[in-house]
Amino acid sequence: MFIRSLLFAPANRPELLKKFPRYRADAFVIDLEDGTPESEKGEARRQLADIVEYVRAQHLEGLLFVRTNAPGSSHIDADLDSALRADIDGLMIPKVGTPADLNRFGKAAVDAERTGRRRVDLIGLIETAAGVRNVQAISAAEPHLRALCFGGEDFISDIGGQRTAEGLEVLYARSQVVVAAKAAGLNAIDQVVVDIRDDEQFRRDAVMGRNLGYDGKMCLLPRQVELANEVFSPTQEEIDRSRRLVAAYEAATAAGRGVIDFEGRMIDSPLLRRARAVLDVASRLRESTS
Amino acid sequence: MFIRSLLFAPANRPELLKKFPRYRADAFVIDLEDGTPESEKGEARRQLADIVEYVRAQHLEGLLFVRTNAPGSSHIDADLDSALRADIDGLMIPKVGTPADLNRFGKAAVDAERTGRRRVDLIGLIETAAGVRNVQAISAAEPHLRALCFGGEDFISDIGGQRTAEGLEVLYARSQVVVAAKAAGLNAIDQVVVDIRDDEQFRRDAVMGRNLGYDGKMCLLPRQVELANEVFSPTQEEIDRSRRLVAAYEAATAAGRGVIDFEGRMIDSPLLRRARAVLDVASRLRESTS
Amino acid sequence: MFIRSLLFAPANRPELLKKFPRYRADAFVIDLEDGTPESEKGEARRQLADIVEYVRAQHLEGLLFVRTNAPGSSHIDADLDSALRADIDGLMIPKVGTPADLNRFGKAAVDAERTGRRRVDLIGLIETAAGVRNVQAISAAEPHLRALCFGGEDFISDIGGQRTAEGLEVLYARSQVVVAAKAAGLNAIDQVVVDIRDDEQFRRDAVMGRNLGYDGKMCLLPRQVELANEVFSPTQEEIDRSRRLVAAYEAATAAGRGVIDFEGRMIDSPLLRRARAVLDVASRLRESTS
Repeated sequence: MFIRSLLFAPANRPELLKKFPRYRADAFVIDLEDGTPESEKGEARRQLADIVEYVRAQHLEGLLFVRTNAPGSSHIDADLDSALRADIDGLMIPKVGTPADLNRFGKAAVDAERTGRRRVDLIGLIETAAGVRNVQAISAAEPHLRALCFGGEDFISDIGGQRTAEGLEVLYARSQVVVAAKAAGLNAIDQVVVDIRDDEQFRRDAVMGRNLGYDGKMCLLPRQVELANEVFSPTQEEIDRSRRLVAAYEAATAAGRGVIDFEGRMIDSPLLRRARAVLDVASRLRESTS
Repeated sequence: MFIRSLLFAPANRPELLKKFPRYRADAFVIDLEDGTPESEKGEARRQLADIVEYVRAQHLEGLLFVRTNAPGSSHIDADLDSALRADIDGLMIPKVGTPADLNRFGKAAVDAERTGRRRVDLIGLIETAAGVRNVQAISAAEPHLRALCFGGEDFISDIGGQRTAEGLEVLYARSQVVVAAKAAGLNAIDQVVVDIRDDEQFRRDAVMGRNLGYDGKMCLLPRQVELANEVFSPTQEEIDRSRRLVAAYEAATAAGRGVIDFEGRMIDSPLLRRARAVLDVASRLRESTS
Repeated sequence: MFIRSLLFAPANRPELLKKFPRYRADAFVIDLEDGTPESEKGEARRQLADIVEYVRAQHLEGLLFVRTNAPGSSHIDADLDSALRADIDGLMIPKVGTPADLNRFGKAAVDAERTGRRRVDLIGLIETAAGVRNVQAISAAEPHLRALCFGGEDFISDIGGQRTAEGLEVLYARSQVVVAAKAAGLNAIDQVVVDIRDDEQFRRDAVMGRNLGYDGKMCLLPRQVELANEVFSPTQEEIDRSRRLVAAYEAATAAGRGVIDFEGRMIDSPLLRRARAVLDVASRLRESTS
């Protein structure tokens, strides 16, 4: 799983969902939760399998998920029933607060896989004070869990704070989620930017997320997908620099020197591993665009 | 419990304590700990009930607490005995480092409530490296616990660091305390500002605390109480904007759209809940000033 | 243990190791891990005891440690064997990810102490997502553990992020390590600065570390040792101010006032303890230079 960009659209908006195949997001989410009003959820579930069949027929690239309603909601049985009959890659679970919140979804994934359908991956959204507090236990709770997302807007609303562009008020929670995800071997996907007309703000926030160790970002619009793919892909400059660094290291090692000076910095194992990771991602990107 | 401002005065300064009824703090603390020198603690305890009776007779608005000495101190028996004979709302416990530190206070609260006096609420001060590390367990340890305060000055002194105006050195601890408090359903009260002549610094620090999710702030002076009440109350602009947002959401929902654009931002559940919380606080403030 | 500066050199570079006695680092580390290429580790181990004997004969001031390879590496037996036959003060263990990672080292320390050699202290390097997540349990796992170091470069590489000069991307991990260390009564030693030609960046990063509560800093070059000693020693101004503050407090206490105004700030216990800690370090520095 390699998700630089994850694009949402409400499950009750077929005209938006049918456009998914036009965009280059690494993952798409059909949203039965906050995006779909209470009164429309039933109809949205009824249309789900047809919509999925439509976008598959249009050769959707990227993974396809359904966001169910929150654990404990009265919608869960119907959400799981309709989602797992459709040809999707997995489920996104909002407002995960405790490890037990995943039980119902893990069991549904096992049942669905038993009936011969494709693998069901779970993505957990950490977006409450309880979820942030319990994220370490959540990250290890369920073998189908493949990624954690951090929901900064919901988190700060749950805790009673206020979001700022700089984002220091979510730095602790955002950091705790990415550390727990990576320590558990999961992907980590960063918060949305709600100021949908401000590209610079999206880019700054994406760069901060990338620096923290996030692999990608939730997107509200196709425009944000382009920006996320850009920020979370290695730049040509990074790729070139990584090639030079690895070459310099290999030459130094051959000459018996373990720590060397490369363009004014000490090369040691962490810098080296980062350089190699950049080259690895670059090679996967070349494959996916070729 | 709704504490935007919590004003301290030393227990050995009756001339300051008697002024409490003049101020509009949401809570007041008579301080038997750091504010009162060792040699004066005995006399301060003897006068406590009379002082409390005096401020009650002067129609003190706001809750009234006594800060005892730290758990494990030789003063605790005498502190609890004098404090719980006075007509107070509860106890503030400094330097809580482990869940067990609350046991003695929880038991004293139960005993006092059994004798027919009013409810005894506990406020725990998290202000050591151990307290920050153990705050999750502390937050769930004792049913009388209603709030956690973060003591940034004491914390940074305990850990051997240095405070700055920007405050990045306490961001982790300050965030961990508010997350633990809110996940446990407790109020969260933010650190003091010791630069008592710098209104701008107080205001900046209060805004940062509010953004993080704190409900209010500890105050060293009446002047700080006014500033804290201001920052931790919703502004008229926030109230008005929240009214418009809720109205726009309701109109959109009626029309079957779940995610809409409101003044350049996407409205979804978190934004909506925040707006509704602002209107709720505003309505409580109107009641308390009417 | 009091380590303001800890200087590394690769174990396969005797010409660098022999210069240790010229420098005033509080601790020195002979690096068998990342600094020494795979092909040179065997020869480096064989020369270790002689090198240590040489620097001891040159009256090395400061503690002397060997950094072994990571727990679980195939080098560990040979590393421990050669290191504990040399006249060193202890071991630095890289990439500690779980409490169990310390077991082998604790046992080796006990065995070595039983044979009559000097005490073996352990320093644990926290530099992976797992290590940061588990740092509280790690800090309490092993009685020989005397210090934790935070490795920001390795950590951010492990988590897949990117380092910046400002360092917000490591603030959570760096804070979590110092809080766990101090709550467990351990020393805390801060991250390296790899931009070895930028004194200002080193100084800024060292000041941030000191503010967070770190006692000292890992250094890649003798130049960084001078800067670290400077930042992590109290300044004459701080010493003088601390003397004035303590004197003012004592006068106020004698006069029965517990909270007083000192140069525009409230003096209370945390400020007082900090002032006394500054005077204590200053007195130890005077001893060590006399």
